[in-house]
Order: sequence, then C-alpha cells, then structure tokens
Amino acid sequence: MLRYPRPLQRVIEELERLPGIGPKSAQRLAFALLRRNPADVRALGEALTALPDAVTRCRECFNYAEGELCPVCAEASRDRTLLCVVAEAADVMAIERANDYRGLYHVLGGLLSPLDGVGPDDLTIPQLLARVERLRPTEIILATSPSVEGDATAEHLRQVLVAAGFTHITRPALGLPVGAELDYADQVTLVRALQGRREM
Amino acid sequence: MLRYPRPLQRVIEELERLPGIGPKSAQRLAFALLRRNPADVRALGEALTALPDAVTRCRECFNYAEGELCPVCAEASRDRTLLCVVAEAADVMAIERANDYRGLYHVLGGLLSPLDGVGPDDLTIPQLLARVERLRPTEIILATSPSVEGDATAEHLRQVLVAAGFTHITRPALGLPVGAELDYADQVTLVRALQGRREM
Repeated sequence: MLRYPRPLQRVIEELERLPGIGPKSAQRLAFALLRRNPADVRALGEALTALPDAVTRCRECFNYAEGELCPVCAEASRDRTLLCVVAEAADVMAIERANDYRGLYHVLGGLLSPLDGVGPDDLTIPQLLARVERLRPTEIILATSPSVEGDATAEHLRQVLVAAGFTHITRPALGLPVGAELDYADQVTLVRALQGRREM
Repeated sequence: MLRYPRPLQRVIEELERLPGIGPKSAQRLAFALLRRNPADVRALGEALTALPDAVTRCRECFNYAEGELCPVCAEASRDRTLLCVVAEAADVMAIERANDYRGLYHVLGGLLSPLDGVGPDDLTIPQLLARVERLRPTEIILATSPSVEGDATAEHLRQVLVAAGFTHITRPALGLPVGAELDYADQVTLVRALQGRREM
C-alpha cells in the first residue's frame, strides 16, 4: 500500500496525537497546510517548536506565564484581598475575557478524581494553603465547574480552608444563562435558578 | 484585558487559521500541547517547519511527492494503460488504501467551479490532455466525486477527451454503500442503485 511522502506522513502522525484529532482530521489538516502559503506553515512550525521552553508556570498562581510571574500576578493594580480558585489556566482566561473580576487567581491544575488517581497532592492544593496563609485574602471564590468533580473539589477545598481558619468562602451562582430560553433549561438548572431567586 | 503569554498567543493565532479550527478549538489544542511532552511538541513543530520544502508535486500526475515522481508513478509494476483522474491528492490515497486499483492517476488540483472562478486552465487539464496523448491509455476513469461540481467536471473532461479522440471513458458506479441499511439510503442513491442493478 502506498504511503504519503515521508515528511507529510510525519506531520499527519504528529497531528493525530493531539486530542480530538483523528486520522481523518489529521490528514485533512495536513493537506490544508500543504495548500497554504509556505511562510505561514513555517510560522506555525516555529511557534510550536518554541512553545515548550517559552511558556512557564507562574510561581505564585500556576497560571501560564512567560517568566516568573503571570500577567495577573505581575499587575500592581489587582485586588490582593480576593482569590479565585480555578481548575485550569484556560479558566483564568475565560474569567479575564469577561473583564469584571479584579482579584488574583489560583490554578489547581485539574480537579480531584479518585477514579483517575488524582488526589489532593496531585493538584496545587498545598501551594494554595501556603499562599492563603501568606496573602490572608478576605474572600476565596471556588470557581471550579458545577460538575460532579468540580463540586467535589470545591467541597474538599472548603473543608481544608475552613480547617485552616478561613470562613469567607464563596462559589459562583447557579442559574439560567443570560439570554437562555426558560423552556429549554434542564430541570436541575431550573430548580437551582428558582432556589437562588433574588429580590428585584 | 489579559492576553495569553505571547508564545502561546502566537500558537493559538496560527492554529486558528487552519480550516475547521475556530478560536475555541485553537485554544483547546494549544493548552493540550502545553500539557504534552515538550519533545513531542518540538517534533510537531519541526515536522511542520520542514513540510513546505520537503513535499513537492509529481511532475507526471501532480500527486504529492518527495522528489520528481510520486510513489505511484515511480512504481514500475503499475498498469500504464489505465488512468484514473481525481480531484485531489487525498483521493489518490483513498483509492490506494482500498488496495485494488493498479493503474496510474492524474490529480486535477480541484473541481471546476465557475462561481469561485475556477475554470479548466486553473486545473491540470492541459497537462492531462498532453499526458493522455503520450500515454495513450486504453481506459480513462473519471473518479471525481458524484456531486454537482464533480459531475460537471467529469462531463467537461469527457467532452474534451472525446474531442481528442479517446472513447473508453468510465465513471465509478453509483449505488448503495456496502453494509448500508436500505431504508436509510437517500432517494437519489436508491434510484441510482436500482437503475444500475446487475444480474446476480
């Protein structure tokens, strides 16, 4: 059976190893790359080659950084009395895009998942506790996803934070997404939205 | 608003420019790359950087090649009396995977599409005619997709090939895919399958 030219085969094999990219998508992407301007393909190649060494973890909050500190921790105007705990660096970006929160973050590096062998020591929970002792924030927001694992991780964090003497611990509201159709909302969300109703 | 570290932002922007990859997928892929073994990310980067120069077009059939000739044209045991015309190099690979056809190919580089400004001279049709004059194949298979553009391209090719004196021109059969459920087949396919019925 005929194979692709070796350099093309190599690109297809490397692309296939990315999450959510199967053999068919990898082939389609590789062919699309061949049809593109060679300078653009080289630009992507060079950006990827440089990536692993260029991007580090912030020594404070474990967000992605270019040097010692991430852009948030380096920003002087941040409110250092507010700490928002998230699972991944991508969650920091999601909250930053909303352009409202002005406190600090802490990136856990995942969620607790005993079935996958992810325990408290596999996340940055010891570093969170040390940091909380040092920063003494007035409020800690546990902004893990409202999923089974996100809820379990938040509950574990609440317990260890309370044990360490912190009491003002919050979690983002559950309810209807803005712009949603009420009759399309799932039952659990609707119940939470009604339970969390507020005076208008 | 906070941006990603510059090297990460650069990878996300380059990935976004690929077909079928939106801002969300590009971000997801970039984060997945950061979580991977640095050696693997560099391997992908280097494979991409090398790609544009390493992959050429076969001077005979316009399939992807590493040198002057593609693996098919370079193979001595191929049946040079059979010529299969396809739209893209990916189609060559699809037919090769089936491991049955032993003739040569000709890659058009697309399909005729007057609305997109793709006319006969934008494809390798002049080269096809010159090659057919030289090879004098006994059969020419027009294996463009059975779509509006694929059918129109095949019909155009049939006319110019007939005008050049070639008469044994075929097109792959239309019918039910092997393993398909009859009652899930669309009506057009079912009509074609019945019209093309064969003695058993």
